[in-house]
Amino acid sequence: MSEPFDIIAVITPKPGKADRVQELLETAAAAVKANEPGVLRYHVQRETKGDAPVFIMLETYKNKEALGVHGASPDFKALGRALKKEDLLAAPMKAYFTKEVGGYASKL
Amino acid sequence: MSEPFDIIAVITPKPGKADRVQELLETAAAAVKANEPGVLRYHVQRETKGDAPVFIMLETYKNKEALGVHGASPDFKALGRALKKEDLLAAPMKAYFTKEVGGYASKL
Repeated sequence: MSEPFDIIAVITPKPGKADRVQELLETAAAAVKANEPGVLRYHVQRETKGDAPVFIMLETYKNKEALGVHGASPDFKALGRALKKEDLLAAPMKAYFTKEVGGYASKL
Repeated sequence: MSEPFDIIAVITPKPGKADRVQELLETAAAAVKANEPGVLRYHVQRETKGDAPVFIMLETYKNKEALGVHGASPDFKALGRALKKEDLLAAPMKAYFTKEVGGYASKL
């Protein structure tokens, strides 16, 4: 079994499409929370500046299997289909596999 | 006094320069932790795939004043000078001001 790891994904909606993309991401996030115990973090961040905000997903997977389950889930596939069918993205999603190497997550 | 807000910054080192950039970011993060109580999160993430990994900073500021203090700090200025003097970056840092709009930060 692999170690937990993070994915940080940048999603770039077309101008005027951010609200619809947010709606889809919120639906996907609710399904992940309900159905995927191996996804330890699935946090939707929206850019607050500019008229074409990006979304940044902060995700943490318990192991590779959890990512496999996520990728195969009907909700994730529905998200992908809707983004494509409604032509909502200005660029392909950019995903970074990351690990923490310093600093601190919280002072609270 | 403004509300807490997040900044997610993507830092792109030149090939072969990631370790030096990480060193500088770790030094800066230690100073932030020690000297800047208004910075609630200053988390250094390194990309684990590819031979030219990017760094993604996950930062949370208590308010605008905290960002002002951060930007004016000698350590932040020293970081900027070193990145420039040693010509370590392949592209300018890309900073996104963000807010959470859905999903969850942790299941732990």
